[in-house]
Amino acid sequence: MNQRIDHTLRGSWTSAPAAEAHLPPHALRWLRSRTGLGTTITPEAPGSVLAVPDSRLGSTVRTALAEVVGEAHVLVDRDARLGRAGGLSYVDLMRRRGAGEPDVPDAVVLPADPEQVQRVLEVCVEHDIAVVPFGGGTSVVGGVNALRGNKNAVISLDLVHLDQLVSVDPVSHTAVFRAGVRAPDAERLLAAHGFTLGHFPQSFERATLGGFAVTRSSGQASAGYGRFEEMVVGVRMATPQGEMRLGGVPASAAGPDLKRLVIGSEGLFGVVTELTLRVRSAPRVKHYEGFILDGWDRGADAVRELAQARALADVTRLSDVDETEVSFELSGGWKVKVLKAYLRARGVVEPCMLVLGWETGSPRELATRRTAALRRLRRFRPVALGRALGETWRKGRFNGPRQRDVLLDAGVCVETLETAATWSDLTALRTAVRGALIESLGTHGSSPVVMCHISHAYETGASLYFTTLTPRSADDPLGQWQRAKVAACEAIVRHSGTISHHHAVGVDHAPWLGAEIGDLGLEVLRAVKQRLDPTGVLNPGKLVGDAKPLP
Amino acid sequence: MNQRIDHTLRGSWTSAPAAEAHLPPHALRWLRSRTGLGTTITPEAPGSVLAVPDSRLGSTVRTALAEVVGEAHVLVDRDARLGRAGGLSYVDLMRRRGAGEPDVPDAVVLPADPEQVQRVLEVCVEHDIAVVPFGGGTSVVGGVNALRGNKNAVISLDLVHLDQLVSVDPVSHTAVFRAGVRAPDAERLLAAHGFTLGHFPQSFERATLGGFAVTRSSGQASAGYGRFEEMVVGVRMATPQGEMRLGGVPASAAGPDLKRLVIGSEGLFGVVTELTLRVRSAPRVKHYEGFILDGWDRGADAVRELAQARALADVTRLSDVDETEVSFELSGGWKVKVLKAYLRARGVVEPCMLVLGWETGSPRELATRRTAALRRLRRFRPVALGRALGETWRKGRFNGPRQRDVLLDAGVCVETLETAATWSDLTALRTAVRGALIESLGTHGSSPVVMCHISHAYETGASLYFTTLTPRSADDPLGQWQRAKVAACEAIVRHSGTISHHHAVGVDHAPWLGAEIGDLGLEVLRAVKQRLDPTGVLNPGKLVGDAKPLP
Repeated sequence: MNQRIDHTLRGSWTSAPAAEAHLPPHALRWLRSRTGLGTTITPEAPGSVLAVPDSRLGSTVRTALAEVVGEAHVLVDRDARLGRAGGLSYVDLMRRRGAGEPDVPDAVVLPADPEQVQRVLEVCVEHDIAVVPFGGGTSVVGGVNALRGNKNAVISLDLVHLDQLVSVDPVSHTAVFRAGVRAPDAERLLAAHGFTLGHFPQSFERATLGGFAVTRSSGQASAGYGRFEEMVVGVRMATPQGEMRLGGVPASAAGPDLKRLVIGSEGLFGVVTELTLRVRSAPRVKHYEGFILDGWDRGADAVRELAQARALADVTRLSDVDETEVSFELSGGWKVKVLKAYLRARGVVEPCMLVLGWETGSPRELATRRTAALRRLRRFRPVALGRALGETWRKGRFNGPRQRDVLLDAGVCVETLETAATWSDLTALRTAVRGALIESLGTHGSSPVVMCHISHAYETGASLYFTTLTPRSADDPLGQWQRAKVAACEAIVRHSGTISHHHAVGVDHAPWLGAEIGDLGLEVLRAVKQRLDPTGVLNPGKLVGDAKPLP
Repeated sequence: MNQRIDHTLRGSWTSAPAAEAHLPPHALRWLRSRTGLGTTITPEAPGSVLAVPDSRLGSTVRTALAEVVGEAHVLVDRDARLGRAGGLSYVDLMRRRGAGEPDVPDAVVLPADPEQVQRVLEVCVEHDIAVVPFGGGTSVVGGVNALRGNKNAVISLDLVHLDQLVSVDPVSHTAVFRAGVRAPDAERLLAAHGFTLGHFPQSFERATLGGFAVTRSSGQASAGYGRFEEMVVGVRMATPQGEMRLGGVPASAAGPDLKRLVIGSEGLFGVVTELTLRVRSAPRVKHYEGFILDGWDRGADAVRELAQARALADVTRLSDVDETEVSFELSGGWKVKVLKAYLRARGVVEPCMLVLGWETGSPRELATRRTAALRRLRRFRPVALGRALGETWRKGRFNGPRQRDVLLDAGVCVETLETAATWSDLTALRTAVRGALIESLGTHGSSPVVMCHISHAYETGASLYFTTLTPRSADDPLGQWQRAKVAACEAIVRHSGTISHHHAVGVDHAPWLGAEIGDLGLEVLRAVKQRLDPTGVLNPGKLVGDAKPLP
């Protein structure tokens, strides 16, 4: 079923068609003049130049693992191991470019089904080997970095062969998938039955359903289709203490919803092997369009109005002035010049771009929902820019990772981070995080670009998604970002934001989880882990990891 | 704030205006001819005739508790204790009528605020006293029965004085409430700010917000306003290991959602003292109407269509043929005769009543939503009965408990139970549970009435709510029901239903929880309890209680 198995996955977005993987020259020129970026281009070095330590996996364990999955599915070669050394954070990508050492697993194990996953866990417990579950490898918070913890060796448990659609129930609108199914494959498989999941995070092209579940993923159309956690009807998880099967009914009051303890558990309690997901009829009509609102506060008020009237479009995304400006500059050309002149003529001082996208079953449904939303928008005096802008956004919506590779080549320190807060706290939170990033990244004498958008809106609040671009420090490219990240996280915690709205915790956010759920909350997570994984083989150092904040 | 504090709460629905607390004579006549019910009327005996054991609370503990809450708020008198002996299940009510022994607490403690709750827990841990948190006392699954477990004494911790609205955030649409606020008070307090919770379970008149949270409550309008668990933005819980504060942001990926572990925990992990809830603008337009569909399967298909098209009314409720017939018979009179003739003339063979209710912000919103729903309904050939039937249902929607008291007086064994399953499993589940109830209750030579409705619909499935009426066994009124309940629970578990969709687990469903979440799921709950309540003072015997299924 999966013809794209790539046992030597690399960190960069290698599946990108070359045509899309570049920045237009005018965009680079603008970035140079805006940030003080130099002109050196340093493409990613081939993996072969990186120092990779030898595998520490003993032959006894290797034999035991091979007995479960077959010899061909225990990989210890350099490329296979290096390919699962980490995810896709800036730090991960820079490590693959030779800055700092990647966390390379001692072996990659490829089980064929849930039963093999269960047995692999048993072997790892018996031999006291750390296990890092690996799906699409798209974590940007260190969630799949192959840390050993207190174990002598660590394997990456790659679920690439758990790629089946097990069954579809067209009456109940549910589908059972193995956890290793990638999002595009899931959509393709469901499309044959007339269904969709509607889950489109930026990691869509690579990420897996199991990964979505254990990280509490949110997609670009989650206002319409719901966050991934809301789609999970049932879950099957292999743990060192045996298999758990939870859920299956549409709703229940049979004690706490233990599914919700599995969702977001980031591989610490077990390995999710199968998911029963709520599916929806595939939309027949897709309609995206763009608007400009004058100023962040007005824009945020407009989005809040839509959310609280339950009139959100399926995609509802508001960019701040800086992000809107960058969008314009990256597009360039005479059309943007005309647009800017038009906006000035309309009296718009601080253009903020709003993209609304509907995916509906019929033109009538689209008309009804769109009319309701536009009626609500009216008093915020939006300037309608039509479908072209919306479609441009839609077509480019998975391009971020590709563009990042190109920006890295060009010497940019480029990264994103995100949070969420109540509407009351949102403006102060944005100001604080933005300020922390600019101050920290600006210390190198350059002028960082810090842009922000609301990616997800709810009745009680919204998420904030920040992207930073700044010339990379030659001496300390990792420390440069890590200091900025710490400053941003401290600002988030101080201003009642969540440490992550949809990127999860991993290694990077673990030092701040206690600020959010309290010491007792951490203790509850540890108690559950202790019960399910008493020897602590599963994903050491993540989520409740004992990592301390960086200095 | 709370002027209705009744320290001698009784089991029956005493706040009912007398006018509503009766059945019309023709209804009773019909019931007698239908079920073989006799003519004896036995009103509830006064509480004073019941044997209540002396309080076992030692004077040292009593003094320690009085030091926390004040002497006037440690009650050991007979009536106060008897008033917290249980909830409102048939068994609870019959115990108060002298059949079997109520589980009477040794004292009732009335803390004034979250800090006092915390300190009461500390006293109880120090003296090894069991604690049963008590809100509205409306549990129908034994959730508030004052069981001692392995402790020498048990107190009922009544949160009646935690009755404050702490704050409202009109920008973020959230409100902070103390956990003991009763639902009608919450609505009244919010109405002053133009908001509503929109949570209307049948227990509405008495139940508390804290109770809604710890039992995963669902209300009659939950299709529109969401289940209670979906309204909880933040929670504050006192535990023997200290206070937990969770949530606050609209959405997060910061590890598993621990709020969801508190929600549904039924007082086993701690005592919920405060809730931050999502509120909505109070509806300006309410519109309820009734329809008849021909046959259960067609009715269920129609509701499924509405759910999967996301066109459900805020209240969507489908009665089966038996429940529809009972509704008609209880109403009686010439109008029902005309209605029946009309339905026959329309060719309706098996009338199933569908109530749809919308609560919207404007007539336009009502028109849009109603039109969308009716368009979907059309192919199921509904017979529209207009607003009168819908309004009749709405006005009587909290009358169930009152009618039950009258039915008990008349010698009826009357009880309800509920479950939920996917659409694919729903018909077989309904047939099985119905069959089990009829077979079990029919063994006494009588003809039980077993009726059912879909109370809540979801994209992937629906709930089923059963009501049974049968002449009460004079010899063994408790055993008669308990055997039927066991038969129904076994049928539910065998047919992929949840053991509870919204009544929770308590004592009554504990024997079947393992069938739903597995032994490992039970172990996870026990691990969390062990961490938060290591000496096991909190609500012994509930949820993961070691109760075995009745023989």
